[in-house]
Amino acid sequence: MNSSLAELFGRISQGVYVVGVAAGERRNAFTAAWVMQTSFDPPMVALSINPAHSSFQLLEQGRNFTVNVLADDQLGLAAHFGKPASADKLAGQAWRPAPGGAPILRDALAWLDCRLDAVVNSGDHRLVTGVATGGSIQRPDSQPLLYRDTGALDGSAALYPAAFPAP
Amino acid sequence: MNSSLAELFGRISQGVYVVGVAAGERRNAFTAAWVMQTSFDPPMVALSINPAHSSFQLLEQGRNFTVNVLADDQLGLAAHFGKPASADKLAGQAWRPAPGGAPILRDALAWLDCRLDAVVNSGDHRLVTGVATGGSIQRPDSQPLLYRDTGALDGSAALYPAAFPAP
Repeated sequence: MNSSLAELFGRISQGVYVVGVAAGERRNAFTAAWVMQTSFDPPMVALSINPAHSSFQLLEQGRNFTVNVLADDQLGLAAHFGKPASADKLAGQAWRPAPGGAPILRDALAWLDCRLDAVVNSGDHRLVTGVATGGSIQRPDSQPLLYRDTGALDGSAALYPAAFPAP
Repeated sequence: MNSSLAELFGRISQGVYVVGVAAGERRNAFTAAWVMQTSFDPPMVALSINPAHSSFQLLEQGRNFTVNVLADDQLGLAAHFGKPASADKLAGQAWRPAPGGAPILRDALAWLDCRLDAVVNSGDHRLVTGVATGGSIQRPDSQPLLYRDTGALDGSAALYPAAFPAP
């Protein structure tokens, strides 16, 4: 079968998150799907981020981040925080700083506050791990939004190569 | 709100996979939920694995692995490959070797063949990245199994600490 790489990788299940970063008083937040747990004890997560994104610099400087889990009725928040970081995407949004300084969205299904642990190159992204030092479920009866249910929101199909690289 | 860490991390959406490893003629496969994409070009994935697992040695030696995506009707396969690696879990299963040698399950929804790129410590696990060099969708009309729909299959709630570590 010939399926495109975008179709194939679409079978890997991901949620949708607004990742918050902070360095001093500078803050930003962006929509991400590439988030997963990587350890039970200590509880850790990994996040794959485009290093060309201005938030990556804040992340490296501030060395902490939040993971805001979006619910299945929050496609609008996903689109808002998925926009390029031209304007202040946090302006007009309901948020508060986590202990580490990164933003917690008031209406997120759940959130984690994380301390950066390691950064490793991963192709066109950087894979960042962090230890979760706090967090809470804010909407216990809601279901998490799945990336596959966001459709072509982020236009990512154009970012894949036409074929697999050679082994 | 006080929610347990298991409940909180359960809001991070994950699929369910059978990860195959091979080193020479030695092969194994195990059920994993901590798999995600980490790069578009080259296409890459990350996998978080318990280093005490015998498959981790095969992975480090053979330096390649497969990711078999399970469908929502394959909870039985998830349970089978989630058992401790006492007996040969591949015996009696329908599989073939990928170009890299690791097993592709005949009935998986989709599969990827990956070349190991990096290994980084991540708490009680090791985070492994790999470049996908092949793959296919085998069941285009099936839905991927979600980890949250496997219930307490793996007993993982007992693996979390009682509280977050200090910042």
